[in-house]
Amino acid sequence: MTNINHHYLKLKAGYLFPEIARRVRVFCEENPDAPVIKCGIGDVTEPLPQASIEAMKKAVDEMASRETFRGYGPEQGYDFLREAVAKHEYQDHGIHIDADEIFISDGSKCDTANILDIFGDDNKIAITNPVYPVYVDTNVMAGHTGEADKNGAFEGIVYLPCTAENDFVASPPSEKVDLIYLCFPNNPTGAVATKAQLQEWVDYANANDAIILYDAAYGDYIADPEIPRSIYEIEGARNCAIEFRSFSKSGGFTGIRCGLVVVPKELTGSAPDGSQVAIHPLWSRRSSTKFNGVSYPVQRAAEALYSPEGRQQVRALVDHYMGNAKILRDAVTKSGLKVWGGENAPYIWVQAPAGVSSWDAFDKILDEANVVVTPGAGFGSEGEGYFRISAFNSRENAEEVARRWAELVW
Amino acid sequence: MTNINHHYLKLKAGYLFPEIARRVRVFCEENPDAPVIKCGIGDVTEPLPQASIEAMKKAVDEMASRETFRGYGPEQGYDFLREAVAKHEYQDHGIHIDADEIFISDGSKCDTANILDIFGDDNKIAITNPVYPVYVDTNVMAGHTGEADKNGAFEGIVYLPCTAENDFVASPPSEKVDLIYLCFPNNPTGAVATKAQLQEWVDYANANDAIILYDAAYGDYIADPEIPRSIYEIEGARNCAIEFRSFSKSGGFTGIRCGLVVVPKELTGSAPDGSQVAIHPLWSRRSSTKFNGVSYPVQRAAEALYSPEGRQQVRALVDHYMGNAKILRDAVTKSGLKVWGGENAPYIWVQAPAGVSSWDAFDKILDEANVVVTPGAGFGSEGEGYFRISAFNSRENAEEVARRWAELVW
Repeated sequence: MTNINHHYLKLKAGYLFPEIARRVRVFCEENPDAPVIKCGIGDVTEPLPQASIEAMKKAVDEMASRETFRGYGPEQGYDFLREAVAKHEYQDHGIHIDADEIFISDGSKCDTANILDIFGDDNKIAITNPVYPVYVDTNVMAGHTGEADKNGAFEGIVYLPCTAENDFVASPPSEKVDLIYLCFPNNPTGAVATKAQLQEWVDYANANDAIILYDAAYGDYIADPEIPRSIYEIEGARNCAIEFRSFSKSGGFTGIRCGLVVVPKELTGSAPDGSQVAIHPLWSRRSSTKFNGVSYPVQRAAEALYSPEGRQQVRALVDHYMGNAKILRDAVTKSGLKVWGGENAPYIWVQAPAGVSSWDAFDKILDEANVVVTPGAGFGSEGEGYFRISAFNSRENAEEVARRWAELVW
Repeated sequence: MTNINHHYLKLKAGYLFPEIARRVRVFCEENPDAPVIKCGIGDVTEPLPQASIEAMKKAVDEMASRETFRGYGPEQGYDFLREAVAKHEYQDHGIHIDADEIFISDGSKCDTANILDIFGDDNKIAITNPVYPVYVDTNVMAGHTGEADKNGAFEGIVYLPCTAENDFVASPPSEKVDLIYLCFPNNPTGAVATKAQLQEWVDYANANDAIILYDAAYGDYIADPEIPRSIYEIEGARNCAIEFRSFSKSGGFTGIRCGLVVVPKELTGSAPDGSQVAIHPLWSRRSSTKFNGVSYPVQRAAEALYSPEGRQQVRALVDHYMGNAKILRDAVTKSGLKVWGGENAPYIWVQAPAGVSSWDAFDKILDEANVVVTPGAGFGSEGEGYFRISAFNSRENAEEVARRWAELVW
């Protein structure tokens, strides 16, 4: 009798985005001529930077002759990419991260999910609310929680409410936790944390022997020079933080698949006998055993984002989406709804009028404006009454959404 | 205090292949002029099929314009590839597998490792010995075993000895087990299982409510038409088997990364209340939550292997490596050593002379012939006294290895 992982049975109906896709599909079947614009899932729309296109094709050509063919690559990533990341994301900004502390992966969703493999099942997990659903669901799947209550909150998780009152940036809890998920710029709220706020978290983690799982997938969208783009800008973070970065939103790699994890060598966790064990070799071992590295042409495409042309093209991509964010933010503000985010992040977080639920707002906006947003309740109970608008779109679509928004009557 | 996954501490020194790489590196540093030929790790050497090169470049070009750009793809894989696999690997051979039972992944190592996510921690695991180390190590990491004994055998695993006596094909055990790893053509021994032998396994699994994890990564190397290439050729397998396939060894995709899992919809496992739960939605949910699909150009490259030209090119690749296998098998046979495999598989399994250990044979062959093989002991205690020679090489290298072999004095 083969037993299943019964923790999967605790998960709520479908992962958020497939559920949205299902509702949109139903709507489109019933309204085949509706000019639907998707501002739901945070998926990029603009072409891949030309530098990546060229690098990838060149790498594919290398695979066509025996002399330059490459088979299995290092599971942790090719040095050319690890070194480019270390230099451009960290060392050039005065941050100490070595190339061999960088692990190249096929994306941040996989990394933030897989990282749990190397930790014990008895850690106290702290997760912000609202939050990217993957952090919660992967903990449920790993058996780190009990059942969900009627609000969808899982027993055993320490939820950190992010609300209008704290500007959607949670402070460290009064109780002791072991693993903390933070994401800045935040998905879904678009909130960013100041240096002082992050210092508070790092100090808390170091004081409590906790580890911060810092998701910086949207780091390139920070416009304000005072806002940290990496947790390692914070004193003491090498002792308590793992950072996740992605090329999905900077280089438009959602369909190409490449991201990375940074694991500083100082970082340790506890073995059952109380001894401290370095995390870096654990993650390296996990990579060697359960992963086989990222496609070589993909790694070359990512490397090319750091060339002079590549960097300009990334900048142009980010500027494009942030231009959309301004248009959308302005339109929603004008409509009288309360708005956060969209200034250092590609997401706009909107409060629905009093009494309108997240999914009601979703349905109304889909029905009346033919625009797909993401219901805030899909990100956790504190997201109820809010919805997220993604700025990942063409300029034309962003402008059209703004026009339709002006006609939407709440 | 963040606890680590302490099961990692039970793992033996380094994963096998990094350890081989380390010894080779040391040898090469000490003997910088030695003309080392690698027949160790099963990594392909020949260029990617031209059909894949062209398809991949075309797909990259699609990413260069907004009209044809693709962002996030379906986590389970694009329909074009799922349908091509279903048709060419199964339906055209009269095997019932639907396209939506196929999950596209970034390789079989990841799949055979990740599949444990959806099963409980209390299953009895059966693993052949010798075996591809990933099956054992991932069970150790998941906490499914106790400590290893002095032979490297982990407490709690039911080992199925594969020896010269059973021609390296294990029979079902007398005791009841729940999850069974089978790999045919076998890595490392090159053994294949007959239809009758597989029927015995399928009948055992169905009688015991067990699930077979069937690794068919080397299926394209089967030359004998009587030998099944898929577990689903066996009556009853849809009720008890998950199959893993890979483009690594058929299309030379070790550096491109693409594989797949087949999960038939009939397959079920047990929930704690004894009810039967379908496995297909569990794996689908796992994919949606912990994975983001395979790079679009990679999926196009895999699809191209099924075009008329692609199929010819795959055939030529396989024929090339099997030509090497024959050369190597003949050379080793001539040297008086006992040999298995290499006829329906790209691996040759060689018994070292009496009293010579696997690692001693490895060191001797490296020192005297400057050829890298894989020590059998690295695949489990029953591999002691054997070594594996990989046929993945250029023809020139295979011939040179044969020449050097003739001069090797045991």
